[in-house]
Amino acid sequence: MQNRPIRRALLSVSDKTGIVEFAKALAQRSIQLLSTGGTAKLLREAGLTVTDVSDYTGHPEIMDGRVKTLHPKVHGGILARRDIDQAVMDEHGIDAIDLVVVNLYPFAKTVANDNCSLTDAIENIDIGGPTMVRAAAKNHRDVTIVVNSQDYSRVLAEMEQHQGAVSDVTRFDLAIAAFEHTAQYDGMIANYFGQRVSPASVDEPAQFPRTLNLQLAKKQDLRYGENSHQQAAFYVESERHEASVASATQLQGKALSFNNIADTDAALECVKSFDAPACVIVKHANPCGVAVGANIGEAYQRAFKTDPTSAFGGIIAFNQALDVDTAKAIIEQQFVEVIIATEVSKDAAEVLASKVNVRVLACGHWQQRHPQWDYKRVNGGLLVQDSDMGSITQADLRVVSKVQPTEAQLDDLLFCWKVAKYVKSNAIVYAKDGMTIGVGAGQMSRVYSAKIAGIKATDEDLQVAGSVMASDAFFPFRDGIDAAAAAGIKAVIQPGGSIRDEEIIAAADEHGLAMVFTGMRHFRH
Amino acid sequence: MQNRPIRRALLSVSDKTGIVEFAKALAQRSIQLLSTGGTAKLLREAGLTVTDVSDYTGHPEIMDGRVKTLHPKVHGGILARRDIDQAVMDEHGIDAIDLVVVNLYPFAKTVANDNCSLTDAIENIDIGGPTMVRAAAKNHRDVTIVVNSQDYSRVLAEMEQHQGAVSDVTRFDLAIAAFEHTAQYDGMIANYFGQRVSPASVDEPAQFPRTLNLQLAKKQDLRYGENSHQQAAFYVESERHEASVASATQLQGKALSFNNIADTDAALECVKSFDAPACVIVKHANPCGVAVGANIGEAYQRAFKTDPTSAFGGIIAFNQALDVDTAKAIIEQQFVEVIIATEVSKDAAEVLASKVNVRVLACGHWQQRHPQWDYKRVNGGLLVQDSDMGSITQADLRVVSKVQPTEAQLDDLLFCWKVAKYVKSNAIVYAKDGMTIGVGAGQMSRVYSAKIAGIKATDEDLQVAGSVMASDAFFPFRDGIDAAAAAGIKAVIQPGGSIRDEEIIAAADEHGLAMVFTGMRHFRH
Repeated sequence: MQNRPIRRALLSVSDKTGIVEFAKALAQRSIQLLSTGGTAKLLREAGLTVTDVSDYTGHPEIMDGRVKTLHPKVHGGILARRDIDQAVMDEHGIDAIDLVVVNLYPFAKTVANDNCSLTDAIENIDIGGPTMVRAAAKNHRDVTIVVNSQDYSRVLAEMEQHQGAVSDVTRFDLAIAAFEHTAQYDGMIANYFGQRVSPASVDEPAQFPRTLNLQLAKKQDLRYGENSHQQAAFYVESERHEASVASATQLQGKALSFNNIADTDAALECVKSFDAPACVIVKHANPCGVAVGANIGEAYQRAFKTDPTSAFGGIIAFNQALDVDTAKAIIEQQFVEVIIATEVSKDAAEVLASKVNVRVLACGHWQQRHPQWDYKRVNGGLLVQDSDMGSITQADLRVVSKVQPTEAQLDDLLFCWKVAKYVKSNAIVYAKDGMTIGVGAGQMSRVYSAKIAGIKATDEDLQVAGSVMASDAFFPFRDGIDAAAAAGIKAVIQPGGSIRDEEIIAAADEHGLAMVFTGMRHFRH
Repeated sequence: MQNRPIRRALLSVSDKTGIVEFAKALAQRSIQLLSTGGTAKLLREAGLTVTDVSDYTGHPEIMDGRVKTLHPKVHGGILARRDIDQAVMDEHGIDAIDLVVVNLYPFAKTVANDNCSLTDAIENIDIGGPTMVRAAAKNHRDVTIVVNSQDYSRVLAEMEQHQGAVSDVTRFDLAIAAFEHTAQYDGMIANYFGQRVSPASVDEPAQFPRTLNLQLAKKQDLRYGENSHQQAAFYVESERHEASVASATQLQGKALSFNNIADTDAALECVKSFDAPACVIVKHANPCGVAVGANIGEAYQRAFKTDPTSAFGGIIAFNQALDVDTAKAIIEQQFVEVIIATEVSKDAAEVLASKVNVRVLACGHWQQRHPQWDYKRVNGGLLVQDSDMGSITQADLRVVSKVQPTEAQLDDLLFCWKVAKYVKSNAIVYAKDGMTIGVGAGQMSRVYSAKIAGIKATDEDLQVAGSVMASDAFFPFRDGIDAAAAAGIKAVIQPGGSIRDEEIIAAADEHGLAMVFTGMRHFRH
């Protein structure tokens, strides 16, 4: 459609950021301002001349504002096709509304207030606002719709450039943002009410709504997916609560691949488990080396030692700032795909700059872990669960063996339990002195995970004797314990809960092993 | 709110299923019918008395129907709080509208038409409909909103029971369905336009929209998630195109757990790969035994033989109907969590009934695989990709070794390649005569997957000599080939594409192995 100058604007916003300045700029262009309620009041206080929507429609606001803009003169003004509908507009005294500036108070924020009753929530559902947004977006050929205050400057710049008009491309782009806004708004409402479908759930809402409505924003298109014949993109949540791969800033290197992002997430989430300076190296979604140390440089060297073969081309995560010495050590010692740390020191960044392909990310500090939902795709559906936020302390451990674990063993048991949580099931992890000695991952029977952990330790010339072992789930048979004891394992941490627990404990006692139960399982598939 | 009898209804539906019968039942209760357009015409043709909305509002439909219901008399009638707003209703001649029956033509169907231009898509966006739906849902205290034709009978039954009124509980439930309907509608619009954000993408839409808007329906709450401290639910897509775990019917047994659903999906999707009668046994998300056979009974026995230890407590999938002999063989031979097949014969169902806990699912037949999106969760975001629909035939294979594979080896290579696609990476699968001999799964370095496959075969007294091997990705070093040859492997299938391909091929030639390249990788993490 031809780009006509904007002559009339309707403004009614919940987010009032910048609205006065924007309205002033419009007024300077002799654009008539229509408005209602709080927005009209604010603009008048700023000295602007504002026409009340009710004066324009000739119909008062009724029912405490429930009905104010739902009127043919408003919606005819928005929806009119300028090239076709002029006669009918004249007949009904409808003035063309060329710019609609409306945004909705986020429903999620309304209901986040603990005092918000169901009645309050319902009263806060906006009917007129979304209708204007949707009508303007539909008629974007003739109308500019703005739902985000950060778009004001862009609209003004275009008007300056195009004799008071906004370009086709921008109007279309803004229209898409408008439907994204209403989709998100009604999605939040459907989620909220969907948690309250049964009378009993009105006061005690269900965790999982009847329909799951998600909206995520594309952060980047990816070169391809898990494999090159799969297309892919990376989406992020609009509200991010915690430093993560989704919020991290890439400081240098090639674009992240699908597998890079997945593995970086696995590495970062694992390294968050530790208070001491820690390093996690991930390959193919599994930690292949994890260690704590006096500093992250030491932690890295110890993590690397677990399995240098797998660490080649791996993803390395730190729970502290990356320093120059550690950066040097990494690039001198190995091929690395991604390094992520809370921060990257200036010196470290300079060192890494010599390896232009290495992807370096800074994610900032996490204060505390934020619960979220975890998703697992199946054909035709989606499994949704709480993310695994389960954790234990020494106080939660129950010693079930005759032999008591030493303090040093207890430290190692807790260390290796934290690692096991991030290893794909069945998971067995051997560790000593805050360093993984062998990682047995992803096996269909537990005893093979134990065997692999042992084989890998031996292959890397690491001494299993005196190490401890974590198992992410209980041992169904004593064979895993027998194998561990034969390899020199001295203490075991596992959930317990097998019908053969007595037999398992007896095996531990027979071998003189210390064994503690956590009472908590950490399957991760 | 008090349950008043419904006296006035507004009907305007895209899905006209049952609308005439429903309207007749309303008319028999002396309910006044308001309507517009095609719905009004249909009801009049059925002999019903219908008031046009334009007659009620006193305002004509204008702009080819773009503005017809967006009027204070309609929305005042819907939104009025009956206990508060009577005076203002009287003043403005607003009649209370107690029942709103509106549904929206699915936007996805509009744009699924190949001839649908962007202009058509925009023109088809409904503005008045969603506004009535949302207004009625907001005021569900006083108004009944129906967006699904299958709810007509329920509404009529309630009216019969409650002197013409609909209960609080039902009005609330229907209001939630209304917001679910509008959320889905605007989500579809946002997805469609979000694929067209750049001017270039209007004619060639991007695959991944600027925002990803998903709505799934809860099929069942689950007892817990991957672990007992995680809450979980199973959601399914409203449009399911293919027989899957999401569409399957559970014939008997305990409720499916989170891990059951995930593993059943893995088993079923893998068994779909085969044309011959096939069986896949999955444990901890990995196939631990796969085989084809003259019939599924034989396929099951051969699949079981691969790894009886892991098969214990496994998930068993068949690509044909489950017969009585196979059902008997399973429950006599092993503990099984889930059995899924296209159908379950009556005799087989009777046999399985003796094991009341075993979950038995029938999923029906799949005609062809339907592409969908695969999701992988990371903290704060979601990786989205095409599901891995890549497949190859014998014609795609490139023999790179001096030795040519025999016909029998080619069959086994393709068989074992199909299995490797469903084994977690790094994946190595040994097979012979259409049966897995060893499965090496989920390792951080490829050579360990090869070692594990060999160790497991040996442990189960299966003969590796003469078997073939599949690798889901290229070999980075010759060590995997050397290990395979030492174990007696005679032919290898792998993508190729390593910078050391020449060295790998030379290793194969040195050992007298046949080796074929697929040119396609199947990472699955």
